[in-house]
Amino acid sequence: MEHLFAVVMAGGSGTRFWPLSRRLMPKQLLALAEAERSLLAATLDRVAPLVPPERALVVTGLHLAEGTRAAVPQLPPENVLAEPLAKNTAPCVAWGAYHALRRDPDAVLAVLAADHFVQRPGAYLEVVRKAVEAAADGSLVTVGIQPSRPETGYGYVELGEPVGLGGSRPVLRFVEKPDRARAEEFVRSGRFLWNSGQFFFRADAIVRAFEEHLPAVARALEPILSAEGADDEARIVADAYREAPSISIDHGVMERAARVRVVPGDFGWSDVGSWTTAWELADKDAAGNASRGGELVWVDARNCYVHAPAGKIVALVGLDDLVVVDTPDALLVMPRERAQDVRTVVEALRGRRDDAL
Amino acid sequence: MEHLFAVVMAGGSGTRFWPLSRRLMPKQLLALAEAERSLLAATLDRVAPLVPPERALVVTGLHLAEGTRAAVPQLPPENVLAEPLAKNTAPCVAWGAYHALRRDPDAVLAVLAADHFVQRPGAYLEVVRKAVEAAADGSLVTVGIQPSRPETGYGYVELGEPVGLGGSRPVLRFVEKPDRARAEEFVRSGRFLWNSGQFFFRADAIVRAFEEHLPAVARALEPILSAEGADDEARIVADAYREAPSISIDHGVMERAARVRVVPGDFGWSDVGSWTTAWELADKDAAGNASRGGELVWVDARNCYVHAPAGKIVALVGLDDLVVVDTPDALLVMPRERAQDVRTVVEALRGRRDDAL
Repeated sequence: MEHLFAVVMAGGSGTRFWPLSRRLMPKQLLALAEAERSLLAATLDRVAPLVPPERALVVTGLHLAEGTRAAVPQLPPENVLAEPLAKNTAPCVAWGAYHALRRDPDAVLAVLAADHFVQRPGAYLEVVRKAVEAAADGSLVTVGIQPSRPETGYGYVELGEPVGLGGSRPVLRFVEKPDRARAEEFVRSGRFLWNSGQFFFRADAIVRAFEEHLPAVARALEPILSAEGADDEARIVADAYREAPSISIDHGVMERAARVRVVPGDFGWSDVGSWTTAWELADKDAAGNASRGGELVWVDARNCYVHAPAGKIVALVGLDDLVVVDTPDALLVMPRERAQDVRTVVEALRGRRDDAL
Repeated sequence: MEHLFAVVMAGGSGTRFWPLSRRLMPKQLLALAEAERSLLAATLDRVAPLVPPERALVVTGLHLAEGTRAAVPQLPPENVLAEPLAKNTAPCVAWGAYHALRRDPDAVLAVLAADHFVQRPGAYLEVVRKAVEAAADGSLVTVGIQPSRPETGYGYVELGEPVGLGGSRPVLRFVEKPDRARAEEFVRSGRFLWNSGQFFFRADAIVRAFEEHLPAVARALEPILSAEGADDEARIVADAYREAPSISIDHGVMERAARVRVVPGDFGWSDVGSWTTAWELADKDAAGNASRGGELVWVDARNCYVHAPAGKIVALVGLDDLVVVDTPDALLVMPRERAQDVRTVVEALRGRRDDAL
């Protein structure tokens, strides 16, 4: 595994964890699944047995570079790659690929989301090993999760028949977020896995795939191969990001490429999609309540989740299934099932209270 | 009305408005019914056309004296009488009576709760005039409110047949908080009014009543009559409060006295009993929501009430009939109908977080 590089995609600035998440404090920098560790730090710790800090790259936005470096101080600062513009995931992966290739012609990439959670790190590492193995022949490899429900918020991969390479199977096709009926059909069929958004490939293989399927991205970022240092690279990247199209690695490459395989994984994966997930992942008391930070007084409260500043008293009386997120300048209260509506709140505040976004 | 003194009972330190109310910031010092004015300030403003600041006395606890003086700066500081011990309302009224009597042998007292609210101050003043008139012959006069529901949290007065004195009627008896069945019977009968806890009597008449029904209180506080100044009075009072029994003016005097009359009043009275009342009194939007202080984002919220620090964003999503009270160190969330359970929260915090009580 001495050729394995991690390319952690940490450019997100979603709004689903407002008011805790902010423009300069996005989800991946928050300790949402564990009390003491940000999702980003946990992501790097998870692969640390295979990927030392020197080979761990984190790609993030320019405005997040400082906060990101502070969140993973074990990384050499130049391993935090700061994108000058947000152009979706394809340029991000291309940057990681050319960067790694310059340092190691035999580089293998583990492209990881910065803001997911894994409950069983040991099982996860086994899957990573299988995925790296499956990528050795130049395949583009994704990790699929056995669906536990007909989720309409995820992409799916359809499995082909197993051919060679024990741990992996060919991907017949990718399917974007399906409607409810199709999702139910997928789950019933047993032939579909959730696309967990983690990819493994040789750097030279994905570069070839870019050249074939996204030549504009390849052209823009290829000069990184001959960059002579971090400053040089940053300058090349600044030019490249102006030119590069905005497109996802899934749509731009994985769905179009020929040799795509999937490694099924079962390691307690979660994309930590909303405050509902935070409650699901948290340790709960006998009444199903969970909290982080605040000093709680529960009176006839069940299945509630509270996130509050350390030491702040939060009293919930006679309430079920409620989410309460308190911060010094903003407070959110909603039923757990309305977690998707956080974006409505954020939209209502845009232009009116940008200081709190 | 040049003999009329107000004696405002402002010693309360209830817990029903926690976390906004605190030991040093009790209900009467909070702007609960109006945005700009504490309940205490409103109480004094209400009688100001009849009682100038020089004749307005506020009786409060020693620990609240400073905050109380700050809340009603128009009063001479020595008119805020600071009780060294809490001994319920009888000693409080006695102090007011002897104090007023020293200054004016013909003094008439309007004994008022500091933490009630009146929606129609004009109608209220008319009732005060009638009550003062009814007290002229030495009667002890209370103000009764036409019950609008079978409330079990209030005391009731039973009306006798009208005899003389146009605006008032004799009281047959006082009834402490009845159970539901009796309360319903009282409302049906048409012969009962809520006891609003406001009393009007000549100072010499109530002193005679103390001498008859609560001689221990009279004995302890009577030396105030010959006090020569505020300091002298404070010293006498310190001794008196050690001696005086703890008993209410209702139970100790009004229920036992012979000549007790009631003036029915209809002026939009509220005892501002809980956060539910705060919502009831507040201006509401079309969806029935009301707020104070915070900057609100309502998404599918109905009939909710929010009290929050100025400028703090509070977002409520998909909620009905909720009360949210936020302060810098404590947050309360509950359905409106659970407002009585605030005391449960306060009890849970006692000994554990006394800093927040």
